[in-house]
Parts: sequence; structure tokens; C-alpha cells
Amino acid sequence: MTLPTTGPEAVAFANRIIDAQSFSTLIGARFEDITPGHATLRVPLRDDLKQHHGFAHGGLMSTMADISLTFMGASVLGPNVLTSEFKINFVRPGTGETLISRASVVGATRRQAVTRCDIYAVQGGKEKLVATALGTIVVADVSAAGG
Amino acid sequence: MTLPTTGPEAVAFANRIIDAQSFSTLIGARFEDITPGHATLRVPLRDDLKQHHGFAHGGLMSTMADISLTFMGASVLGPNVLTSEFKINFVRPGTGETLISRASVVGATRRQAVTRCDIYAVQGGKEKLVATALGTIVVADVSAAGG
Amino acid sequence: MTLPTTGPEAVAFANRIIDAQSFSTLIGARFEDITPGHATLRVPLRDDLKQHHGFAHGGLMSTMADISLTFMGASVLGPNVLTSEFKINFVRPGTGETLISRASVVGATRRQAVTRCDIYAVQGGKEKLVATALGTIVVADVSAAGG
Amino acid sequence: MTLPTTGPEAVAFANRIIDAQSFSTLIGARFEDITPGHATLRVPLRDDLKQHHGFAHGGLMSTMADISLTFMGASVLGPNVLTSEFKINFVRPGTGETLISRASVVGATRRQAVTRCDIYAVQGGKEKLVATALGTIVVADVSAAGG
Repeated sequence: MTLPTTGPEAVAFANRIIDAQSFSTLIGARFEDITPGHATLRVPLRDDLKQHHGFAHGGLMSTMADISLTFMGASVLGPNVLTSEFKINFVRPGTGETLISRASVVGATRRQAVTRCDIYAVQGGKEKLVATALGTIVVADVSAAGG
Repeated sequence: MTLPTTGPEAVAFANRIIDAQSFSTLIGARFEDITPGHATLRVPLRDDLKQHHGFAHGGLMSTMADISLTFMGASVLGPNVLTSEFKINFVRPGTGETLISRASVVGATRRQAVTRCDIYAVQGGKEKLVATALGTIVVADVSAAGG
Repeated sequence: MTLPTTGPEAVAFANRIIDAQSFSTLIGARFEDITPGHATLRVPLRDDLKQHHGFAHGGLMSTMADISLTFMGASVLGPNVLTSEFKINFVRPGTGETLISRASVVGATRRQAVTRCDIYAVQGGKEKLVATALGTIVVADVSAAGG
Repeated sequence: MTLPTTGPEAVAFANRIIDAQSFSTLIGARFEDITPGHATLRVPLRDDLKQHHGFAHGGLMSTMADISLTFMGASVLGPNVLTSEFKINFVRPGTGETLISRASVVGATRRQAVTRCDIYAVQGGKEKLVATALGTIVVADVSAAGG
């Protein structure tokens, strides 16, 4: 199966995955721009997504990273993928109306993709980098999964 | 300020932080057992916390890691901390009724703590490791934050 | 092929791999104690393995982590493995006569092992934790590697 | 103290640090091109820097990452820094005559810089990405270090 990798068709496909993921839906994540090797994910920063100082919760940004990195892996490896691991660095507190994750493929072989994303907080139209992540997506081993 | 580090008082303190974090509340996280250097966080695996295959969403486990690792850092550094970064490995799909994160302090100096957690899925009373995380918690630089 | 996983036979096997790795030999690394799921790697802290403050170089500790984590992966997955990635935290400066890495398997499935190690500096018989690492080892895809 | 951040002066400064680090000298690392926010580190791939399949040792690439990431942190935070942690992903085996690490600053606050690098193997004039790393550099707490 080949995934659409660019344009409205790719965005619609990606958001159908979001719709099928109850947790991604719970946080209000939507893909909004996809080109080959790049994807943008947007999450409006609702009050129930924050921590006790009123900033975006680290878990929220981690969830955005997980969604973005996995999707970028699927864009080059196909839909049958697993997220092996990722690392996230928090650069500064996330404040504003919206968080945006911009993901890309760093490098890929036949069975594995290394992907990264930068997460920005948007406040009054201005973007500030708040986090960055780097992860590994692998092709799911169907025979093993069935074992 | 010194945090209670053991017993019901520590659990109550930790859960007041959870109560103040809307996103932690949204996912239903609760601390339930805290001893010096160790803490257990529990999240019932509701349907709205899953991904499209019905497993626990990677972002959910990442959020549990973020909460657990940060709390362990605060237990040795005091409440005024920031999570610098963490890394999470997904070992196997998370299925069952409950996820449990068991966190501990690996090492700490005056300004920084390295903490880890193992996350288990509980199904029919049996625990399986589903993820593990390692992170860095730092004392917040108040003067810088105010600058 | 099954690897010996415990005792002098396992240590001898592991050190033959070290002998075949010129860079591991260059830093003077030796395995010295291996039991199922655990392995100890020792590096005498020579002057030419340090940074400009006289501490163990971060690259040295990273190399020990790479060797330790990969070996632990091979102990459960077999010898045909690749190190996908790892993360290392530096807890405090490494001073003393020797560095020791104690590695273990956190969790493994058929194609992937998550392994960790703690690195200690030994000075006057006393051990201090100086670094900790967490990584992912995968079975090499022979068909892909040959393609 | 302000570090030179561009041109031959910056390269000379960076290589004096290399000269003072016996382990960096042992592996033959040299900075060769530095502009504000970017630095290139080169290591000729000698036979004694390899693993048992003849590829660049993972520890070598990790050491290049450690040197590159730390230098980029110092370029924005000043020379008094510590490397808190980093993560490295291995994309494909490293073969060729030379390894090159290209590092940059992802984001920085007053006390902390997040830096990344991509490591390439050069063979016959062609570059291939072999690894990528992401790390955290912090200002050393002098008072704590003296305690």
C-alpha cells in the first residue's frame, strides 16, 4: 500500500488516522499541511491541555511528537509501522493559542526511518520554538506480531 | 521548601499537583505509592486514551513518563523544577485495564536529577513491561525565568 | 547461533568481539563478568581518554555505552544485530582509575531489545555513578543489508 | 568571555580545545568550518576507529557527536559548559575515507542550549548520512562544582 504523500489527499488520509485514534482526537490534533518528507500537525492549546503553571503540558508536546514522528515514518515505510522510541527536548515553556509540530524525515532505510520534529507555540501570530524531538520508526514485523 | 517523600502525605501532595495539571487530570493519572526515590503512577486505560489498533497511545505513555520523571526530580531537587528532556522506548503494545509507571532517581547533583521509569500494562492481574523512559530534570533558574 | 550468556566462556566470547573491534581495543575495553541479562565492561582511565579538564571524555563513556548496550542486545537476539540508537546522560564528572559499565536487558521482543547501562568511576575502591544510557538493539535484516 | 563564533579564528580556537582533549586528539578530530550557529568536525576514518565488520565504530560517531554538540553549546553559552546528555541514531553503516559531523543550535535559553548534528560518511567524494544526534548543553554551576 502506498500512502499519499502530498496535498489535500495526504492531509485527509492523515486526519482519518487521527480520527481513528481516540487519544489524538481527545487532544484535538489535526494535520494541516503535508508534502513529501514533511508534515505539519496543529493542536489548539485548550485549557485542559496544560500543567499547573498554565503552560502546555510536557505530555501534550510529547504526544504531538509521537503522532508527528510516527506519521513521517509511515510516509516513507508504509502504514504498517511501529514507533520504536523517541526523545524530546523542552526548549522553553509553551504559551499561546496553538502548538504546531513540523516534522521531517532525517534518513530512512528499508525497515527503519529516523524522523524529527520541531514544536512551536504560536502567540499573536508569532512562533517560538518550544520543543524538538528525534525518533525511530520501524516496519512492524507482522509474523512476529502474530506469534 | 521540602517535599514529603514517603507515605500517604507524599501521595496526597503529588496528587494535588496532578489536580492542578488539567492535562494530567484529563488522562486520569493518580499517584498511589511513594517512597524515598520511588513513585508509582496509575492510569486506567480508558478507550479514549488509545490509538487506532486499540493499544495504549504512545502519547499517553509519554505523558505518564513526563509526569513520573518530573515528580521524581522534584522529590530530590524541590518543587521548583523543569523537565529538560526525556527519551522513551516502546517495548511492546500496551493492552489491559491499567497502565502503571514505576519511577526512580538514577542520580542527582545539586541542580540536576536523572530519573527513569518503567511502564507496565496490567491485564487480568498480570503486569507486562510496555515502555521505559530516561530523563533529565533541572532546577528552574528563577532569575532567568523572570528575565 | 546461540551465544554463551554466562561465565568465563561468555566473557571470552565477548572479549573476542572486542579484539575484533579496533576502536574497542584502542580504548582498552574488556568484559569481565557476564551472567544472563547482565554484563560488566571495564576501561582503565588512561590519560589519553580524557577531556581538557582531566575528566573521562564524554565520548569515552558513550563508546562504553555503545559496546555494553549492543552486547546485551546480542545476548538475547543473537550475534547478528545492529545498534539502532541510544541516549546517554552524564551525571557527574568521571575521575579515578577505572570506568565500569554495568549493562542489563530492560525488555526484548523477537526482533528488538531495549538495554540499559550504568557507568561508574572507581577511585580508591569507591564507585560513583557518572553516566547512564538506554538504547535499542535490532536484529540486522540480512536480506536488506545485502540489497 | 566571548568565544569567536566564525571564521579561521573560531576554527583555531575550537581546535585548541581539541588539542587539550587527549581523547579527541586520539581519534584525530579537527574542526574545519565554523559560522555562527554551525560547526563542522572532521575525522579521517582510520582502521583503528572501526568495529568488527569494518564500519565506523558507533562509539566513534558518538564521540564526534559529543564533541560537536558540546562545542555548539559553548558557542552560545560561553566556554564554561557541561554536556548534560545526548541521543544518537545510527541511520546506516559508516564506510569511506572520512566522517564529517555538521552541528547546529536548535534553541537556547540563558542556561541551556539544545544542539543537534548530522554525521556523514564521505566515500569517493560522495556524502551519506550515517547518524544524527540531539543533545543538551548546560552552563556549569561553578559554585556547585567547587562544593
